[in-house]
Amino acid sequence: MSVVSYDPVTGRENGRLEESTPAEVLAAVERAVEVAEEVAGTAPAVRRAWLAAVADALEAEADDLIALGDSETGLGRPRLEAELARTAGQLRFYGDVAAEGSYLGVTIDHAREAQPFLARVQVPLGPVAVFGASNFPFAFSVLGNDTASAVAAGCPVVVKAHPAHPLLSQALGRIARSALDAAGAPAGLFALVSGRQAGIDLVQAPGIAAVAFTGSQAGGLALWRLANERERVVPVFAEMGTVNPVVVTPGAMSRMAEIAAGFVGSFTLGSGQYCTKPGLMFAPAGSGALDAVAAALRDAAPRPVMLTADIAAAVRTGLEALVAAGAEVAGVVEAGADGWAAPAAVLGAPLREIRPGSRLLEECFGAVALVVEYADERELAAAVGRLQGSLAGSVFTADGPDEAAGRAMGMLSSRVGRVTVNDWPTGVAYSWAQQHGGPWPATSAPAATSVGAAALDRFVRPVAYQSARDEWLPPVARSDNPWSVPRRVDGVLQTAP
Amino acid sequence: MSVVSYDPVTGRENGRLEESTPAEVLAAVERAVEVAEEVAGTAPAVRRAWLAAVADALEAEADDLIALGDSETGLGRPRLEAELARTAGQLRFYGDVAAEGSYLGVTIDHAREAQPFLARVQVPLGPVAVFGASNFPFAFSVLGNDTASAVAAGCPVVVKAHPAHPLLSQALGRIARSALDAAGAPAGLFALVSGRQAGIDLVQAPGIAAVAFTGSQAGGLALWRLANERERVVPVFAEMGTVNPVVVTPGAMSRMAEIAAGFVGSFTLGSGQYCTKPGLMFAPAGSGALDAVAAALRDAAPRPVMLTADIAAAVRTGLEALVAAGAEVAGVVEAGADGWAAPAAVLGAPLREIRPGSRLLEECFGAVALVVEYADERELAAAVGRLQGSLAGSVFTADGPDEAAGRAMGMLSSRVGRVTVNDWPTGVAYSWAQQHGGPWPATSAPAATSVGAAALDRFVRPVAYQSARDEWLPPVARSDNPWSVPRRVDGVLQTAP
Repeated sequence: MSVVSYDPVTGRENGRLEESTPAEVLAAVERAVEVAEEVAGTAPAVRRAWLAAVADALEAEADDLIALGDSETGLGRPRLEAELARTAGQLRFYGDVAAEGSYLGVTIDHAREAQPFLARVQVPLGPVAVFGASNFPFAFSVLGNDTASAVAAGCPVVVKAHPAHPLLSQALGRIARSALDAAGAPAGLFALVSGRQAGIDLVQAPGIAAVAFTGSQAGGLALWRLANERERVVPVFAEMGTVNPVVVTPGAMSRMAEIAAGFVGSFTLGSGQYCTKPGLMFAPAGSGALDAVAAALRDAAPRPVMLTADIAAAVRTGLEALVAAGAEVAGVVEAGADGWAAPAAVLGAPLREIRPGSRLLEECFGAVALVVEYADERELAAAVGRLQGSLAGSVFTADGPDEAAGRAMGMLSSRVGRVTVNDWPTGVAYSWAQQHGGPWPATSAPAATSVGAAALDRFVRPVAYQSARDEWLPPVARSDNPWSVPRRVDGVLQTAP
Repeated sequence: MSVVSYDPVTGRENGRLEESTPAEVLAAVERAVEVAEEVAGTAPAVRRAWLAAVADALEAEADDLIALGDSETGLGRPRLEAELARTAGQLRFYGDVAAEGSYLGVTIDHAREAQPFLARVQVPLGPVAVFGASNFPFAFSVLGNDTASAVAAGCPVVVKAHPAHPLLSQALGRIARSALDAAGAPAGLFALVSGRQAGIDLVQAPGIAAVAFTGSQAGGLALWRLANERERVVPVFAEMGTVNPVVVTPGAMSRMAEIAAGFVGSFTLGSGQYCTKPGLMFAPAGSGALDAVAAALRDAAPRPVMLTADIAAAVRTGLEALVAAGAEVAGVVEAGADGWAAPAAVLGAPLREIRPGSRLLEECFGAVALVVEYADERELAAAVGRLQGSLAGSVFTADGPDEAAGRAMGMLSSRVGRVTVNDWPTGVAYSWAQQHGGPWPATSAPAATSVGAAALDRFVRPVAYQSARDEWLPPVARSDNPWSVPRRVDGVLQTAP
């Protein structure tokens, strides 16, 4: 079997690649298992150097990679240039987070009275299966957040390449392999496999200790079910597409045109192929939000080109499903004629249609959004309470003080992992305070994030050592704190020495 | 339907209680949902005061509670006195952990260049279903670690009482309710339900946001499956009984008699009804470990009385199953004649029988343990590698330096959540560095602990606030740090002011 690479702009074939065989998948996992203890035992600063070497190699080959990525994704060079730079930055950032050492959670209770000596530290889980996403061929793919944070946390990684950019995936895998070899990392630290069956084999491989995924609900839940059927069940950290609500407060009505333009910019960005795309706006009755958004969409006149033929077809069926569920199209830009083109559209629906089980509550991947008017705050709160969990929610407020703002933030914070205020959710900074995850079904593990410093926490588990002599402890738990990490000693938090 | 209370020592009925109806369960959850936001919004120091009030009430009623508990569990007054004191200590400890505030994970990135302002804080999940355990009627039951840590973290709790001590559960529920009322806690913060169907209804109730459980693998996995079938899947933190291996190094052979006596003391403690009971000892060939343990068991002459008739019967069938799986009884103390008496036994088996799928790798709840001899370290490592994940593992070493000790700790740390050295695993201190959890199937969530400061982490999830005005943020995220908690600001960890 082979994976075919297409150019979404033209629909023409770029080339094809062989899928990994079951034996190749198992061999990759076996090599990861063999080096897992060695990788776990390296100092975080060593892993930071490995990740920095990969970042350097990525930047050195940027031109070729961006050209290849554009030919497979149609996302355009400017976007891909920025995304590659971001990806190199992420690789270095997760290395820095590892070296800072708080993620190790070193906690020491000295023996006293009836209590024994205890030292608790986070240890790596072992080999992680990473599923690349289609929509960020650099930042959430072969060398994206999941790979970088898993390696930073001390875990070998086996990546399953996304079939929407197989040639780029192969090139990224080759670059990583060569940079890691040159940096002295063990050969089993990183491997790439491809093909649908390879993904299934990977999740079922006994040596895999965790699964990281970014993509659709259907894909993420299928992997989660598969992992739950293993003899040794392993955690699945699936970040899944959701509807990402937006609330416009009454105080923001005076700047509805500006907000409408921003909304269109955000939900059509990257042809609407963001898992943080704002998909559902709640606007005050009488705000004219739907007309304003429809007008802004006409002005912006986007020309969405989707990552795959399947996604392009799904935009059309998604639009039909939204209409069948009670929405009406208020503005549409018809699809172009070539390749994987799709329409962009805004729809309106009465608030009563925002009810559990309705298709209106689910993501429509692509440049499609819904606008709903609310009569008062009570009605708004009830509707927000009926939403699925989402990755992000946004509030747009008056320029100055706005009584309703804090309450709208409170409503959204019960349903999402990130609340943006007068700011669109499609930008996801990688930094210490980021949260890219949310209540079920936005993530299969509601406390997890796949972006930001806490992304490492997914790939470790605590071990406590009781009454052990200092020299028998793993280095990080020893009294001389050889890696100079923050610790909690006898209940007192201590910053790094 | 009613729940019957028995005295395990005599087998006679103490009394009976009505099971909760489905409507009562739903009403308890509904009241919890109604107050969830209020509870989440309280300062941690307020919740500490609530928990301290419950601890005070527990101590004030200690005599009656211990008498009642002894009549339902047969665990004896000295053990129950210590356990009640511990339970009061736990309630205060989790309150202190909440007030210290690190669990809130406050992380602030100020806006710079292309990055927006982000403040990330942990927020409570909402109503938690707690399943009391049979074997610790105070410390892991109605007011045990799960209830205390969930309330400390800001979550209302609905407890499902364990049927092995229904009258004590009822009394504990009444005391908690009255202490919480007097302390000004909202009425929906705490509720108690009983009956098997009530437990199922509780896990399926839409308002429940997480499930905490301590008990058998069969019970824990059944709840986990049930929760995975919900429309909104919720996390299940199940701590489940496992075999808890012990490794005796060659250097420790000279003190085999002392170790054997300690082993017997630990595996027969509380009639072997500890989830941390050491169930499987690996001793060097020629150490005479099996004979030494059999002799120590004869000397100790324990008289196990089990918590329920079912558990007593399971000890007998468990012993038969171990023999059928290739073990031989080397020493046994026959069961007494009255009540829920059961035998105590040590068995030996050849190391080749330690293989995946064997019954020898599973817990036999009760005063039963297995001794296996290993020829060399390589054989030991292979056998340890085949074990299921466990809560704890132990290493016994030479008195002085011992080359093999660190390596044995390393082997065990890949299979367990806590490694004790020259110390038995049955004591589980509640402190900052404790870890009571382990790889699957010891826990359904391998990074979770149900004892120690990190127990709170199970019941929170992060929310990031982006570009929000300071006064719209929840108090804990505001720039003036009103609760004086440790924070990370622009990547730099800061201890509490």
